[in-house]
Amino acid sequence: MEFAGSHVLSVGQFERPDVEAVFAVADRMEPYARRRRVTRVLEGAILGSMFFEPSTRTRVSFGSAFNLLGGEVRETTGFENSAIAKGESLYDTARVLSGYSDVIAMRHPAEGSVAEFASASRVPVINGGDGSNEHPTQALLDLYTIRSELAAQQRGIDGLRIAMVGDLRFGRTVHSLCRLLGLFSDVRVTLVSPVELRMPGEIVDALRSAGHRVVESDALEEGIADVDILYSTRLQEERFASPEEAALYRGRFRLNQQVYTRHCDPNTVIMHPLPRDSREAARELDEDLNDNPKLAIFRQTDNGVLVRMALFALILDVADQVDAHSRDVHWYTGGRNP
Amino acid sequence: MEFAGSHVLSVGQFERPDVEAVFAVADRMEPYARRRRVTRVLEGAILGSMFFEPSTRTRVSFGSAFNLLGGEVRETTGFENSAIAKGESLYDTARVLSGYSDVIAMRHPAEGSVAEFASASRVPVINGGDGSNEHPTQALLDLYTIRSELAAQQRGIDGLRIAMVGDLRFGRTVHSLCRLLGLFSDVRVTLVSPVELRMPGEIVDALRSAGHRVVESDALEEGIADVDILYSTRLQEERFASPEEAALYRGRFRLNQQVYTRHCDPNTVIMHPLPRDSREAARELDEDLNDNPKLAIFRQTDNGVLVRMALFALILDVADQVDAHSRDVHWYTGGRNP
Amino acid sequence: MEFAGSHVLSVGQFERPDVEAVFAVADRMEPYARRRRVTRVLEGAILGSMFFEPSTRTRVSFGSAFNLLGGEVRETTGFENSAIAKGESLYDTARVLSGYSDVIAMRHPAEGSVAEFASASRVPVINGGDGSNEHPTQALLDLYTIRSELAAQQRGIDGLRIAMVGDLRFGRTVHSLCRLLGLFSDVRVTLVSPVELRMPGEIVDALRSAGHRVVESDALEEGIADVDILYSTRLQEERFASPEEAALYRGRFRLNQQVYTRHCDPNTVIMHPLPRDSREAARELDEDLNDNPKLAIFRQTDNGVLVRMALFALILDVADQVDAHSRDVHWYTGGRNP
Repeated sequence: MEFAGSHVLSVGQFERPDVEAVFAVADRMEPYARRRRVTRVLEGAILGSMFFEPSTRTRVSFGSAFNLLGGEVRETTGFENSAIAKGESLYDTARVLSGYSDVIAMRHPAEGSVAEFASASRVPVINGGDGSNEHPTQALLDLYTIRSELAAQQRGIDGLRIAMVGDLRFGRTVHSLCRLLGLFSDVRVTLVSPVELRMPGEIVDALRSAGHRVVESDALEEGIADVDILYSTRLQEERFASPEEAALYRGRFRLNQQVYTRHCDPNTVIMHPLPRDSREAARELDEDLNDNPKLAIFRQTDNGVLVRMALFALILDVADQVDAHSRDVHWYTGGRNP
Repeated sequence: MEFAGSHVLSVGQFERPDVEAVFAVADRMEPYARRRRVTRVLEGAILGSMFFEPSTRTRVSFGSAFNLLGGEVRETTGFENSAIAKGESLYDTARVLSGYSDVIAMRHPAEGSVAEFASASRVPVINGGDGSNEHPTQALLDLYTIRSELAAQQRGIDGLRIAMVGDLRFGRTVHSLCRLLGLFSDVRVTLVSPVELRMPGEIVDALRSAGHRVVESDALEEGIADVDILYSTRLQEERFASPEEAALYRGRFRLNQQVYTRHCDPNTVIMHPLPRDSREAARELDEDLNDNPKLAIFRQTDNGVLVRMALFALILDVADQVDAHSRDVHWYTGGRNP
Repeated sequence: MEFAGSHVLSVGQFERPDVEAVFAVADRMEPYARRRRVTRVLEGAILGSMFFEPSTRTRVSFGSAFNLLGGEVRETTGFENSAIAKGESLYDTARVLSGYSDVIAMRHPAEGSVAEFASASRVPVINGGDGSNEHPTQALLDLYTIRSELAAQQRGIDGLRIAMVGDLRFGRTVHSLCRLLGLFSDVRVTLVSPVELRMPGEIVDALRSAGHRVVESDALEEGIADVDILYSTRLQEERFASPEEAALYRGRFRLNQQVYTRHCDPNTVIMHPLPRDSREAARELDEDLNDNPKLAIFRQTDNGVLVRMALFALILDVADQVDAHSRDVHWYTGGRNP
């Protein structure tokens, strides 16, 4: 994959060497994300942040990643001006807005909308989520987190044993993560969900075609034993026909410290795409896990900044210039580097 | 007109030399807008972007223009804090907010509100649209586009033949453009509209007083023959008493490639203030024109960045320092410079 | 108080030397706020501006203050993404969002929420208002304004005579200001309010415990005679059970030029936390005072930028480096330095 000038629309664009290239650059972004150094490599560049559907953390993560490279961010949230309500096509919107920036990060509620926008854009577009379709930067940051967490044990993604738990039918992030796992070898995926919320068949088939072992289960305890990564998900309540239907599944699989201690290998890393539902009736990841050093959920969101910095650097073709435009940080950074 | 420190509230402020001064500076902004060079002339300056009425493209265009000069942007959209709902006067709002920036770009739904705000502001204010009253930067970018498009034919604005088509009664942009055309000589303006949506009489009178020829018509085909510029407009549906009344006029004048080929001179440039209404019932500019090289509608929005950069540079008195604070761009810019 | 890395959550954190340290740094920020010089000391740093409750002026004041130090701002307004609606805890929100910036300014409608957020944040948090609880930067800017205004008369805060007028029961700013006044000596506080809207007893007690003289009154004329500072407040209408109940007090204490001339010492400085209610029925500070040189309400909001710059500089430990990263301004600044 040639990164310079490319759109990032789907995990399907990435071959294994592409993923590894992104991760190698992401590694090199850490001093900047941790505020040990500052780089100004993109000083003067503008990110157009077009969040036609709100998502605070994805939006701020993209924006901060771009700022950390020295660039500026111009944002749009919601369909605030209703040009679209006045009958404007996505083609026109894209042609106009792409004249205002060097690269665009876009989220939109309609499937395929970001690709349609990108086809008319004059600058590279990164998909920040298009409905239930794709959210490639989330999948990349998830896989990057798996890689980072396993590296501490001198292991790689090949040979990974992962359990995915919860609403596997509607959870977009687990779908995309499975697609990326298809690029690696010898993975064992345990899918724990209510029968009605099983992982879609075509994704399971694709994993098996890639030579991976897939186990499906509706029992939490047996599914989470003997895995490297336990990837928990929230019930996508907004996707059910009614709150009553969602309630049938709410709170079905709850991981807390007691369950973890009893059933998990002590090296098992806990991940979650967030937000986790901390209301009494749900609690798929109990707050009593907050002091568990294997809870990686906030390292995951931190990694999102690294991965997005890497994508910007690659797409704008400055990955090799980041360090040359860098300098020391002279303000307080103790909270981040304790 | 002395630009340094001035408000830009109305096209009526501009004499011909003023317009030409803006355009001359806008020409020099092109390397920066095209990302061939970066300038940091306004590094440290702050634009207060106060969009009390939403307008994504105008807001982002102003913001990007300021970023391209190296400055920062602090934005307000909507009446989010409702200080005004708590009884605050526009005078107080202006006195307070003008303490936070070096220059302000403001849009507001009420006619005259921007001028009232400006009279209390301690920094220059640019009108980004005050209801149906004025939107001077749109008029300037329209005229700048006419000038640019005709320059390819070695022609100037003097002697221009232009057709304005559509809702000429409620369309704010055509009113302001006519006022600017009054500064030039020997213009022929063909006004094509339904009888009920004719250009207001005082604007027609002003054009004639300036020595221009004005032809009014309700027939598209005869109106668009033999012109340099065909300026199409959207039906301002929100200004009609009812959707039913608007429906009487919707789709009345449709330009598509077939009509263009049959009736227009092959050099005729097509403009539109955008958004164009691409819904089946409207389509004043058909999408089959998208590949027509004379469709200038996206060059028009691009020119908006140049004109706004020029106004910022003139008002903040840095037009002659832009190049001295510039350097090469080292990131990918292929989409913009194919 | 050790500033570097500290949260600023409450005026209760500040001892007198802390307040004086903030004010000393604020004094040194004036050349930057006035655009006589530019500093880039925080170039590369990011402020997370998290306004879960809207407040244009506080939000823009924080943002501009950070920009004036050279830093970038990433903003969130409203509960736009509803992660909290999806059951996310404030702990999770804080852990995630604090990964995206170097310091956070936060406003939230719930009392205690900012402190709860801060306890989970990895970076310093400044309270920009948490419901009816605290708004420490407002109290600091008020006291800084008192100090600045009295300095012209060669006086300090010790020995101050101040009248607070209006809704003293619900007005958060007067409560916090009284708490800060407790750090100084020999202050006389005259509290003018309807009996039902009197200053809470514990605040009056605390003033007296600090050795100050407190006079309570429901008569404007006698309360405002012979004071250095007249601090007027708006009726907090949104805090009353009904508009009818609020109407009982609306317009009760109106200061205009005639009242001022007749009853106030000619050196009496007029302050107000803004917005003032300029509707006919309210008008606690009449607009005929706008030309009175002792009306300090806009100097007050300007001072907010200085105080917020000072807090950022202290918390991020760059107060002594601001000048070293500075340079002259070369754009038009006439409006600010007439």
